Amino acid sequence: MAQRDHTQVADYLGANREEWGALAEASPSDAADILEQLEEEDAAELLAELPADHAAEVLGEIAPELAAELIEQLPLFDLAAALSEMPSEAAADLIGELDEEVTEDVFAAMTDEAEDEVREILLYPHDSAGGLMTTDVASLPIGLTTGEATERIRQLHEQYEDLSYVYVVDDEARLSGVISFRDLVFSRPGSTLGDVMIPDPVAVGTLTDREEVAELAQRYHLFGVPVTDDRGRLVGMVTTDAVIEAVQDEATEDFAASVGAGVAETVYTNVLESFRMRVPWLALNLALALMVAFVIEQQTGIISSEPVLAALMPVVALLGGNGGQQSLAVMIRSLASDDVPSAQVPGILGRQAGIGALNGALLAALAGLLSLGLLESRILGTSSEPFQVAGVVAISVGLVLIIGAVAGSAIPVVLRRLGLDPALASSIFLTLITDTVGFGGFLLLASWLL
Amino acid sequence: MAQRDHTQVADYLGANREEWGALAEASPSDAADILEQLEEEDAAELLAELPADHAAEVLGEIAPELAAELIEQLPLFDLAAALSEMPSEAAADLIGELDEEVTEDVFAAMTDEAEDEVREILLYPHDSAGGLMTTDVASLPIGLTTGEATERIRQLHEQYEDLSYVYVVDDEARLSGVISFRDLVFSRPGSTLGDVMIPDPVAVGTLTDREEVAELAQRYHLFGVPVTDDRGRLVGMVTTDAVIEAVQDEATEDFAASVGAGVAETVYTNVLESFRMRVPWLALNLALALMVAFVIEQQTGIISSEPVLAALMPVVALLGGNGGQQSLAVMIRSLASDDVPSAQVPGILGRQAGIGALNGALLAALAGLLSLGLLESRILGTSSEPFQVAGVVAISVGLVLIIGAVAGSAIPVVLRRLGLDPALASSIFLTLITDTVGFGGFLLLASWLL
Repeated sequence: MAQRDHTQVADYLGANREEWGALAEASPSDAADILEQLEEEDAAELLAELPADHAAEVLGEIAPELAAELIEQLPLFDLAAALSEMPSEAAADLIGELDEEVTEDVFAAMTDEAEDEVREILLYPHDSAGGLMTTDVASLPIGLTTGEATERIRQLHEQYEDLSYVYVVDDEARLSGVISFRDLVFSRPGSTLGDVMIPDPVAVGTLTDREEVAELAQRYHLFGVPVTDDRGRLVGMVTTDAVIEAVQDEATEDFAASVGAGVAETVYTNVLESFRMRVPWLALNLALALMVAFVIEQQTGIISSEPVLAALMPVVALLGGNGGQQSLAVMIRSLASDDVPSAQVPGILGRQAGIGALNGALLAALAGLLSLGLLESRILGTSSEPFQVAGVVAISVGLVLIIGAVAGSAIPVVLRRLGLDPALASSIFLTLITDTVGFGGFLLLASWLL
Repeated sequence: MAQRDHTQVADYLGANREEWGALAEASPSDAADILEQLEEEDAAELLAELPADHAAEVLGEIAPELAAELIEQLPLFDLAAALSEMPSEAAADLIGELDEEVTEDVFAAMTDEAEDEVREILLYPHDSAGGLMTTDVASLPIGLTTGEATERIRQLHEQYEDLSYVYVVDDEARLSGVISFRDLVFSRPGSTLGDVMIPDPVAVGTLTDREEVAELAQRYHLFGVPVTDDRGRLVGMVTTDAVIEAVQDEATEDFAASVGAGVAETVYTNVLESFRMRVPWLALNLALALMVAFVIEQQTGIISSEPVLAALMPVVALLGGNGGQQSLAVMIRSLASDDVPSAQVPGILGRQAGIGALNGALLAALAGLLSLGLLESRILGTSSEPFQVAGVVAISVGLVLIIGAVAGSAIPVVLRRLGLDPALASSIFLTLITDTVGFGGFLLLASWLL
C-alpha cells in the first residue's frame, strides 16, 4: 500500500470505529503505517483490541520513539502481553524508550521468560551486538548426530526466529562451529555435528559495535552472526533482519556524520538530545568560519573600490562547495560499500581532479560570461572593469572546482588514515577549504588583476 | 584482516612470486582486497593461476569497474572459465563492463548454460530486478508432495544459491506460492506444496526498480524476492545477498543525490561519465548563486560604509548552511529507513524549529560575543559601531539557524509530495535559502540597524 492509501484508511478508521476489525487483516507493516496516521488515543485503543501476538508484530514495525508514546497509553496488561510476544531485541528497544517508573511494572506483568531475555539484552548498549541479538538461537551440542539435530529442531522450530544457521556448542556451551540449516537437513545420516560443521566460525562479542557486525556480515556474506560472551560461550545471534537493518543504519549514518548531526538521531529524537549532539559541531564551524572571515578581512580593500565583488564572491564559494560535496559524497559512498584499497587512492584523486577540471572549465566559461552579461547590462550593479571582474570570476570558479574536487575526495581518506570515521564532520572541513579559496582566493586574485 | 594487513601481504606477494599459492588459502573477500593492492599485471597473473571456481569467487568480491580492467588482462580461456563459474548476475555485471569487441569472444568461450543465463540478465537494466536476480531459483510444481519436493531439492541443492524460499509454480510456470525451506522440511508427510504454500506471494517484475525491491524486502522482511515476467511466470529471484546490497546502495545514494552527484557514481566511474552526471546540477547551482548575488548586490551600499560586514557575512551563511544540513540529513535518513507518515510532519517540523532555536540562541550569543571581541581588539579589522555589528551578527545567526532547520526538514517532504526523490538536489536548494538569508538578510538587517 502506498503512503496515500494509508492516510485514507486512517481517516476512514478514525471516523468509523465499528470497522476497526479490518486492521487485523492488514500486514503488520501496513497496520503500523495506518496506526502512525491516527490520533494517538485512537491508535492506542485500536492496538489494545488486537490479539497480543498481532499487536506485538505491529508494534515492532513502528519507529521505537513513536511506539513508546503509544504504549504508554495502553493498559498495562495488554502492553505486557504484547511485549512478551515480541522478539526479545524489539521488546528491549521499546522498553528502553519507556519512562523508568513504568519499566518495573511492565516487567512484573510480562512472562518470566520474556522478562529474563529482555533484561539480558538491556545489559548491552543499543548499538552493540548484544543489543541487536536475539537469544532465540538454534544451538546444539557437538556430539549430536545430524539426524538427532534435525529431529530436535523439528520439535522446536517455531521457537527460532532465524534458522539460516545452526550453531554447534561444546560441553561448556562455547561456540565450536556452524552449519547451514540446509546442509544439516541434507547431511549423510549418522554423521555428527562435529563432522559436518565448519569449525571456528566468524563470531562477535556482546560489545562489538554494530558497524563491525554489518561489515563482517557483508564481507563474508553472512545472513546471521553468532554472538559470544567473554568466555566464548554462545549467547545469541544477530539475525538476517537485524543484519539488514544494521547495514542500512550504517549506510545512512555517513550523511548525518558529515555535517555533524547525531548518528543516532532520527526525526523523533528529543529536541534537547538533538541540540546536544549538534551544537559542538556548529561551534567548531563557527571557529572555522571566523578563520575564513579573517582571511576575507585582509582583502576587503578591493571590495571598497569594486563593491560588486561582495555580491559575486558567494557565487564562487557556493560552486566550489557544491562541486566538492559531489566528490565527497561519491568518496564516502565508495568507502562505505567497498573498502577502497590505498593503492587505488592516487588514481582516484587524479580522476576527481580531472572531473573538477572539466566541471571547472565549463562552469568558469559559463560563470564568466554570465557575470559579464549581467555587469554590462547593469542588472548586477555596475563595474568600472567588467571584463576583468568577469575574468576573476571565471579563473576562481575554475580553481575552486578543481580544489574542491580534490579536497572532497581526500578528506575522507585522511580521516580514515587518522583512524577516524571517514565521514566525520567531513562536510564542515571541506567547506572551510572551499570557502577560504572561494572568498579569500577570489578577492586576492581580484586585488592582483583589477 | 584489516586494510593494513592486506597492504603488507600485497607488498610481500609482489616481491615473492613463489608464495602466490598462499592466496588460495585466503577467503574470497580477503584475496580480493590483496589483489586490489597489487600491480594490475601481477594481479591478473595471480588470478590466472587460481582454480576457476576460486578465481570466480575472488572476482565477485572486486568492484566491477576494477575487475573489468583486471580480466581484460586474463587469457580468454581462464576468463571464460571463471565467468562460467560465477553466479550469473555477478558475471553479467562484469561482462557489462567489458569492451564490446571482446564480449562475443568471451561468450563463445563460456559454457552454453552460463552464456544463456548471463545473456538473459543482460536483457534488463543493471538496476532492475531482472538485472539483480539469479536464475538459479528453487521452483517446484504445485502438485508435488512436500516429501517429493524435499527429495528433489536434496538431489540438486548444490545448484541453488539461496534456499531461503522455495517457490511454487503452476502448469504454465506461473508463480503460485511460496514456502520457506524450513517449513517445507518440517511439513506433514503427504501434504502437497499447494496445501502448505502461502499463495500469491509478494513478487516483482523484471523491470521493477532496485529501490522498490529494497523497500518491499524491508517492509515485509523478505530475505529473497521472486521475479516474474509479464505473464506472471517465475524467471528468477533476488537473493538475500542481492537484497542486502540493494538496501545499502539505496541507503547511500541519498547523500550523492542531495548534492547532485550521480547516484550510480563510484570512485571508479569514468571521468567523462562523472562530469556528465554532475555538471547539470552545478549549472543549476550557478543560476541559483547568481540570484543570491543579485540579492546581495541590492545591499552593497552598507558594505562600503562598514567593510568588515563583507568578512562577517560568510560566517552567518556558513552556520545557517551547516545547521540546515544537519536537519536535512536527519530528515532524509528517517525518510529512507522509515516511511515518515504525513500526520507526523507538523510535529517533526516543530521539533526541528525547536532545535534550530536552541542552536540559534547559543550560537547567536557565541558569534556575537566573538565578533565583538575580535572587532574591539582590532584582530578582525575595525568598525565604527562594533556593538551594533556584533548585534547584527547575533540576530542573523539566530534567525538563519531557525530558518535553516525548518527548511532542511521541509525540503525533502516537499520533494516527496511532488513525487520526486526526497534527496534530489535537496542540499542545493537548502543552500539557496540559507545563503539568501545569511548574506542578503544579514546585510538588510545591517542597513536597518547601523
